[in-house]
Amino acid sequence: MNIILLSGGSGKRLWPLSNDIRSKQFIQIFKDQNGSYESMVQRVYRQIREVLPDARVTVATSKTQVPTIHSQLGEDVAVCAEPCRKDTFAALALAAAYLHDVKEIGQEEAVLVCPVDPYVEPDYFRMFTEMEELAAKKAAALVLMGISPSYPSEKYGYILPADAQPVSRVIQFQEKPDAKTAEALMQKGALWNGGVFAFRLEYMLEMARRHLGSRDYEELYDSYEKLDAISFDRAVTEKETDIRVLRFGGSWKDLGTWNTLTEAMEENSVGDVAMNESCRNVHVVNELDVPLLCMGLHDVVVSASPEGILVSDKAQSSYIQPFVDRMDQRIMFAEKSWGSFRVIDVEEESMTIKVTLNPGCSMNYHSHERRDEVWTIISGRGRTIVDGMEQPVQAGDVVTMQAGCRHTILADTELKLMEVQLGREISVHDKQKFELE
Amino acid sequence: MNIILLSGGSGKRLWPLSNDIRSKQFIQIFKDQNGSYESMVQRVYRQIREVLPDARVTVATSKTQVPTIHSQLGEDVAVCAEPCRKDTFAALALAAAYLHDVKEIGQEEAVLVCPVDPYVEPDYFRMFTEMEELAAKKAAALVLMGISPSYPSEKYGYILPADAQPVSRVIQFQEKPDAKTAEALMQKGALWNGGVFAFRLEYMLEMARRHLGSRDYEELYDSYEKLDAISFDRAVTEKETDIRVLRFGGSWKDLGTWNTLTEAMEENSVGDVAMNESCRNVHVVNELDVPLLCMGLHDVVVSASPEGILVSDKAQSSYIQPFVDRMDQRIMFAEKSWGSFRVIDVEEESMTIKVTLNPGCSMNYHSHERRDEVWTIISGRGRTIVDGMEQPVQAGDVVTMQAGCRHTILADTELKLMEVQLGREISVHDKQKFELE
Repeated sequence: MNIILLSGGSGKRLWPLSNDIRSKQFIQIFKDQNGSYESMVQRVYRQIREVLPDARVTVATSKTQVPTIHSQLGEDVAVCAEPCRKDTFAALALAAAYLHDVKEIGQEEAVLVCPVDPYVEPDYFRMFTEMEELAAKKAAALVLMGISPSYPSEKYGYILPADAQPVSRVIQFQEKPDAKTAEALMQKGALWNGGVFAFRLEYMLEMARRHLGSRDYEELYDSYEKLDAISFDRAVTEKETDIRVLRFGGSWKDLGTWNTLTEAMEENSVGDVAMNESCRNVHVVNELDVPLLCMGLHDVVVSASPEGILVSDKAQSSYIQPFVDRMDQRIMFAEKSWGSFRVIDVEEESMTIKVTLNPGCSMNYHSHERRDEVWTIISGRGRTIVDGMEQPVQAGDVVTMQAGCRHTILADTELKLMEVQLGREISVHDKQKFELE
Repeated sequence: MNIILLSGGSGKRLWPLSNDIRSKQFIQIFKDQNGSYESMVQRVYRQIREVLPDARVTVATSKTQVPTIHSQLGEDVAVCAEPCRKDTFAALALAAAYLHDVKEIGQEEAVLVCPVDPYVEPDYFRMFTEMEELAAKKAAALVLMGISPSYPSEKYGYILPADAQPVSRVIQFQEKPDAKTAEALMQKGALWNGGVFAFRLEYMLEMARRHLGSRDYEELYDSYEKLDAISFDRAVTEKETDIRVLRFGGSWKDLGTWNTLTEAMEENSVGDVAMNESCRNVHVVNELDVPLLCMGLHDVVVSASPEGILVSDKAQSSYIQPFVDRMDQRIMFAEKSWGSFRVIDVEEESMTIKVTLNPGCSMNYHSHERRDEVWTIISGRGRTIVDGMEQPVQAGDVVTMQAGCRHTILADTELKLMEVQLGREISVHDKQKFELE
C-alpha cells in the first residue's frame, strides 16, 4: 500500500506550542505505551507501522518541516518536500509525481492520503485496506472516508451519500458550507470528510496535468512557486462525480484547537505542574523550566512555552489566532535537523541562545557581517572550525568569533552551548553560508 | 516625629513574585503619579515623606533585606537590621535600642511604628500626628490605630474600645481570635488592629528590659539569635491595660494575598499581556519577556516570573502557601545591593546566570572550589580583578576563571554579563570571600 502522509502547516491555533516553524503535529504531548511522549506525526506514523507494516509511507510536507520530520520519524522515512506552501492540491500533485517519477510506482497502483492530525485508534487504519482495494479495482475515481458529524461545523467538507450502507455512492460533496447549509446537509445524512481518501495514481497525475498543466516531478517542482494555492477538496473533490464513501464509526478527534487537543491528552498536565483539588477540567502543558501552579480553575487550558503563555477558557481557546497574529513574531524556540535552539535572553545589543546539537550533527559553515559571537560549551564534546582551523572542544571551552569570521561546530557527542551574539543589528538574515574547504 | 517602618518577611503568599529573598513589599506593581511602577515599601515611604516631611524614618528589617531596602529607598535611609528573623517584639526592641543608643533619641520622645504593607491614602498618615501627641503626653502607654472590621477574620488582632468616641480607652485586646470569637468581638464594637501604634521610647526600652533582659543595642544585637520569636502584640499589647485607640475611617487595604493585592492595582495588567474582551475581573502580572494571552477568564489572577507561574481563581489565591512550600526552593531571581541576578538555564553540570551590576558597584572578591566560570560581557564597561590582576572589560569581552581563582568585577557604567558556571556540584554555598589585596 502507498500512503501519502500529508503534513501541513498549523498556523497559530495551538500557540504558544506551535509557531511558524514548529507546527502542532510536532508537539510531543501524547503518552505512548512506554510512558514517553510522542507527537501527532509520531503517533500516526507508529500506528500505520503497527497496523499496516507493509505500507510504503511518503511524507508530503514543506521544505521547512523536513528537518523536524527526520528528527521525529528517523532519517529513513521518504519525504516529498514542497519548495514553498501551496495548499493541498499542489502538494498532492507533487507527491503523486514524486511517487511516479522518483519512486517509480506504477500508474495503476492505488494511493491513500492520510492527514497527520487526527487522533484515532487502530480501527481507523484498518479501513485503509478496503479503501485501497476499492480504488485499485476502479469502484470509483475517488474513495473517501466519512465521519459521523457531531455538530454543524463550518470547517469540514460534507459528503452526502446515496444511501445508509457502509459503502455508498456520493451524490454531493460540499467543502466548508455555512452553519445553516451544514445543518441541512446533516439532516439529509451527510458525513464529514475526514481527509482520508484513496485513488489510482493515474487519477492524481491526470488531475495535475489537467488543472496545473504539469508533466513530471522535476517540472512541477521547478514551477511550483507559480502554482495557485488551492485545496484538493475545492479543486477536485467538489467537482468529481464518481466518488464512493466508506463510513468510519470509530473514535475520531481532530486536534486542530486547544479544546480538541486537550480531549486527547491522557493526563491533565505535561511538565512541572501542580493543581489544587478544586480544579475541574483543567489541562496544562508547561514546557518551561519553572513550576506552574493552578488553583480553583474550571474548564481552562494553560500552556507555557519559550514563545509565550496562554491561559484560556476552553471554549474560547478556538479564537486565539487574531490575538497571536498581533504579537511579536520572533521565533524563540525551534527544532532543526541538527538539534534545537532556544532564545533565552534578548538585550538591545546582544542575544543569548542555548544551542543543542545532536551527536554527529553540525551547523552550517557560516559567518555574520554585523555581529560577534561567543560560544561557551556547557556539555559534550565536538570540534569547531573557525576560518578553516579545526579544534577539539569540550564542556568549559570558550570560542570567540569576530564578525566576518567563518565558523561551525561539529558534535561528537550530544553537545550543548551558550551562544552570546553581540552587535547592533542582530538579525536571522545576517548570515552567509559557505562550503567547508 | 520618629517612625519605625517595620519591613517583615512575606513568606510565599504572593508567589511567584515573592520568595525567601524578595518579599511582597518590594514588588513594583503600583503606578505612581509619573506613570512608573513603585513597590509597597516605596509607596508608603513616599507617602510618609509627602504627608510628614519632618519625620525621621528608620526601617526595621532583617539583614537579608538591607540591599533591597537601599536599592529601593536610596542609600540615605536609616536601617536597623536584625541579624536574623525573630518576629516583631525582638525587631522593635532592637529598633528602640538603635534609636536610643545609635541615633541618640531621648527616652521621652514618642515613636510611631508603621507596617510597610497597607495600601492606604494620605489621610492614614495624617493620623500619625495625633497618635504621636497622645503618646508624648502620656495619655496612654500604647496608642493604637483601629480599623473598622469588614468580616470576622482570624488573622488580625481585635481592639475593644470602651465607647464609640474617635479616641477611646481600650478595655480588651485579643490577638488573632477564632472566627466565632471574632464575630462576638465585632458585635461588641471591636476594631481591627492595623499594626500602627505609638509609645514613648522609654516604654519600649522598659518592655525589652523586662521581657528580654536587654540593656543596650550592642548587647541585644549580639544575643539576638537566642531571643524568643514572639510578636509584639502577643508579648506586650495583649497584656497591657493602659491603651488608647484612635479610629481610622478611611480606605485601608491589607495587601497580604493576591486577592487583596489585585484590588489595589490600578490597571488590570503589568507587563506584556493581552486579554480578549470576554475576560472579567482578571489581573495579570507578567515579569517574563514573552507575551501572555488570556481568553475568556473570570475572577482569575495570573502571575508569571522567573520563579514560576500562578494561575488562580481569586478567592482561592489565599491558599497557595502549602503548594508553594512543596516546590523546589531554588531562587531564580534576586535583587542585591550591587544589582540583580537571574538564573536563565540549569543543566546537570552547568548553570547560566544573567548578572546586572549597577554603575559603581561590584561583587564580593571571591572564589569557588568546585566550579569554573565564564563571563561574557553583554553591555557596559568595567574592570575585572582575577587573582589580583585588574583589567578593563567592555561588551564582547570574555573572562574565564578556573575553580580556585579569586575574582570580582567592578562596574563603571551599568554592566550586564552572562555567567556560565561549569562543574559537578554547583551550589551557592561553594563560595569563599576575600578582601581585595
